[in-house]
Amino acid sequence: MDNLRDYFRDFNQLPAFGKLVELATRPLDLRAVGVIDPERISRYRCRGGGLELCYFGQRVDEPVLTALAELAEQSRALEQFALMRRGAVLNRIEGFAAENRQVLHCSSRDIAAASPAEPAATARTKAELVKLGQFLSDLEVGRLTGPGGKPFTTMVQVGIGGSDLGPRALYLALEAYAKPGRRVRFISNVDPDDAAAVLRGLDLSRTLINVVSKSGTTLETLANEEMVRKTYAGAGLDPKDFFVAVTGEGSPMDNPERYLRSFYMFDYIGGRYSATSMVGLVMLGFALGYRQVEEILAGAFAMDEAAMNPDIRQNPALLAALLGIWNHNFLGAETVAVLPYSQALVRFAAHLQQLDMESNGKGISRLGASLAWQSGPVVWGEPGTNGQHAFYQLLHQGTTVVPVEFIGFRASQYGEDCEIEGTTAQEKLLANLLAQSLALAVGQDDPNPNRRFPGNRPNSVLLADRLTPTSMGALLALYEAKVAFQGFIWNINSFDQEGVQLGKRLANGLLDHFASRRQGREPPADPLGRALLNLL
Amino acid sequence: MDNLRDYFRDFNQLPAFGKLVELATRPLDLRAVGVIDPERISRYRCRGGGLELCYFGQRVDEPVLTALAELAEQSRALEQFALMRRGAVLNRIEGFAAENRQVLHCSSRDIAAASPAEPAATARTKAELVKLGQFLSDLEVGRLTGPGGKPFTTMVQVGIGGSDLGPRALYLALEAYAKPGRRVRFISNVDPDDAAAVLRGLDLSRTLINVVSKSGTTLETLANEEMVRKTYAGAGLDPKDFFVAVTGEGSPMDNPERYLRSFYMFDYIGGRYSATSMVGLVMLGFALGYRQVEEILAGAFAMDEAAMNPDIRQNPALLAALLGIWNHNFLGAETVAVLPYSQALVRFAAHLQQLDMESNGKGISRLGASLAWQSGPVVWGEPGTNGQHAFYQLLHQGTTVVPVEFIGFRASQYGEDCEIEGTTAQEKLLANLLAQSLALAVGQDDPNPNRRFPGNRPNSVLLADRLTPTSMGALLALYEAKVAFQGFIWNINSFDQEGVQLGKRLANGLLDHFASRRQGREPPADPLGRALLNLL
Repeated sequence: MDNLRDYFRDFNQLPAFGKLVELATRPLDLRAVGVIDPERISRYRCRGGGLELCYFGQRVDEPVLTALAELAEQSRALEQFALMRRGAVLNRIEGFAAENRQVLHCSSRDIAAASPAEPAATARTKAELVKLGQFLSDLEVGRLTGPGGKPFTTMVQVGIGGSDLGPRALYLALEAYAKPGRRVRFISNVDPDDAAAVLRGLDLSRTLINVVSKSGTTLETLANEEMVRKTYAGAGLDPKDFFVAVTGEGSPMDNPERYLRSFYMFDYIGGRYSATSMVGLVMLGFALGYRQVEEILAGAFAMDEAAMNPDIRQNPALLAALLGIWNHNFLGAETVAVLPYSQALVRFAAHLQQLDMESNGKGISRLGASLAWQSGPVVWGEPGTNGQHAFYQLLHQGTTVVPVEFIGFRASQYGEDCEIEGTTAQEKLLANLLAQSLALAVGQDDPNPNRRFPGNRPNSVLLADRLTPTSMGALLALYEAKVAFQGFIWNINSFDQEGVQLGKRLANGLLDHFASRRQGREPPADPLGRALLNLL
Repeated sequence: MDNLRDYFRDFNQLPAFGKLVELATRPLDLRAVGVIDPERISRYRCRGGGLELCYFGQRVDEPVLTALAELAEQSRALEQFALMRRGAVLNRIEGFAAENRQVLHCSSRDIAAASPAEPAATARTKAELVKLGQFLSDLEVGRLTGPGGKPFTTMVQVGIGGSDLGPRALYLALEAYAKPGRRVRFISNVDPDDAAAVLRGLDLSRTLINVVSKSGTTLETLANEEMVRKTYAGAGLDPKDFFVAVTGEGSPMDNPERYLRSFYMFDYIGGRYSATSMVGLVMLGFALGYRQVEEILAGAFAMDEAAMNPDIRQNPALLAALLGIWNHNFLGAETVAVLPYSQALVRFAAHLQQLDMESNGKGISRLGASLAWQSGPVVWGEPGTNGQHAFYQLLHQGTTVVPVEFIGFRASQYGEDCEIEGTTAQEKLLANLLAQSLALAVGQDDPNPNRRFPGNRPNSVLLADRLTPTSMGALLALYEAKVAFQGFIWNINSFDQEGVQLGKRLANGLLDHFASRRQGREPPADPLGRALLNLL
């Protein structure tokens, strides 16, 4: 494989960087009469992988799009994406101790590919899918049941971070397609009230517990697993008849004496990229069935393929990455709001917070130097139309410009609707989505200063026909690819998370205080820790 | 009452403004050895209204605190807060058409006051509380039941914005205290899948529907109410036996032929400030009982009183407001993260997004001039420790500085816990909370650049003994007062929301397209609208 060092080019040294700085001194004025016209609306659409990115509301014109395409090319972003799929060790920092791992989340959906980019990894995926199929069929035919042959109706996923946010976002997005009588709950927080609240009102004898931790040593997950095991034991049930595990092969959790089944995750798939591995699929298979799992993977695979397209106008993931960089690095926006007009995507922004901010919230380049440019933005968001009645005031008239990524679907999931004042609820939803996009871009003048809208608030609308397993897979993969592209262009390592270590170390120090107090031994000689505990 | 114009002083004209600009050129370096010491930790605590704000992790020293106190005094923030409670018409813009309303959310908890600040408003609150007490007692003793005398077990709150976010955040925060056999669900989004998903699996015959809309004309709420009524009718149940209303007196929803009971809300309480009015209390009374409602009000009242304290070191709401302004306007942070170490506060940040961003996301002063300074920040957040496994990477090492407001409780709600590796889950939770606060402030040096933490990331920790109805009332009121104080200091109107109007108007235009298509009539002569609809 090529020398990766050749791909690690500093963002501000790329020729397109200077060009974009120059273009950003006079960005397109979306308020000007005739700028947003029917032709722009119909032409500024980018289709790929089953989704469509409408970007008439971005402050870009042909020269900016050309410069962004050059930025993509000069940063060799697409080549790096292809290298990533083939198993290059892209999780690294040149010259310094680092994780030095491959980045192979795409391998988990290459099962449909005629020739997978990294055949060994895809073979491992297939082996896990066979185990999953067997598990689901055992549940289906009653080979695997609760006491007295009662079928399992509930699965509780115990995990945190990537073992919680992505899977939870997917489950809520697709709950409309759940098999009758199947449901999923989640326990993540080390806050003991999380487990206590979830366990209340469950029929434990019909509930499977799916414990998910790659290392098998995640503090929160161990604590919650123990709480749940204690609850089972307290109810006279043997935990080992109810627990399954998703973990790394050979981890402390890879133990048939404690788990009915173990599914494997691999160290070349980072937690935040793991929703389409067993981390998400065991639970989704339980809830939705195996065929829907295949559809999620097919949707994600289609987007991975679309992300290889060198034409930025036909590659929505790459275009979304470049538009984000334009808004963030050149127009100076510090955050980005992801606003799905779909209640089922209620936790999608929470997943994106991890995916994006843990990947790209970095301070050094892949060459180990402090960044002289902004890396990842703050990502946040809530579903519309709810948000319209909450924070849109600031989006429209605040002193901060927040670029918006709207997401919408032409049809609803349940298809239950009714007409009021001449339109359906789904039509009201879509009318509001498009109206907000337009309003943010064009603004409004008024003699009353309180009714003035400055406009030029950049936004795009990502559209699909309906939120289904397939389109959800594509949506997930689009954002994964977007984040990877941005990391390649910023020349940062989007695949490690050293920034979580300091807090862990300090927390362990404070836990030593708690433990010593509990055991009646001398507290550690650490006056700062003692002062902090005195606050409690 | 005094001439309000005298209170509307421009932020950048206050003498303390220049002083703070100067101080911000060399803010306290929290990384320096000995700056954060046990004495600072124990001294930088501000108690009031039952809560405690620990601010050793903020980049403030005595000169900055003095200048902030001057800023508070020069802006007459406390006087305006007192005027607000007494009923001054503070929802206004001088010289321009505006709402011109009083701002009396505090009146809803002045019921415990010896002499309420605005007796007429508090008398109205008391009348509604009497109606609520009667309603709850009718449910309790079985005077009000479903068909066949079955008790109601579920209430569905149908509302959006302030009729959803604050009430929902409170319900989830206090669900641990729910009466046995009582639960609440929420429908808010005009997305028809929201209602469809919630209605699935409800026993309608045991479910009350609480429709909440001040005007009685909110688009989303009307659409959802209609969906729900249709579902009742489809199940052979007469909707009027199941529906109650919270609305303005005389609104289209104030109609005994369609609702079992109507509770009133008043136009001097804005939606985002209405959680302690009937908007939140009918539902909370159903779930928790009347006594818990009184405790919420008592907690909020205690904080309203504490917010009158002229000493910023004994007024946590005012101090939080000033620290926010220091970070935002003088140290240049564009966002603020609210990170509760409590799973029950999972939707508190969503409430704060409305409360803060709709109040203070403004572009003009109360004198009608464009602002020459930043108004409200972007507010976002998720519970810890979950967030540690998601976006904390960016908080610690990203290129953007995000001030953090941590929230924690010394004890858990359920009290169910177990010891692992020498400590309980609650102790792990608290150790992580304090460790994160310290880590963000002090950072870390390391020969490996990827293990360096820049530190100086400002944060504070708001503590209470336990999340109860009382402390939740205080927490809610603290943020309401904080937001109002910041608005007074920025000289903006924190009580209107003109910024939502443009989107509404444009949405109505697009709805006309949908309606014409549905009715087979000529579409409106609006090429832009047509082009937008063609995207679908």
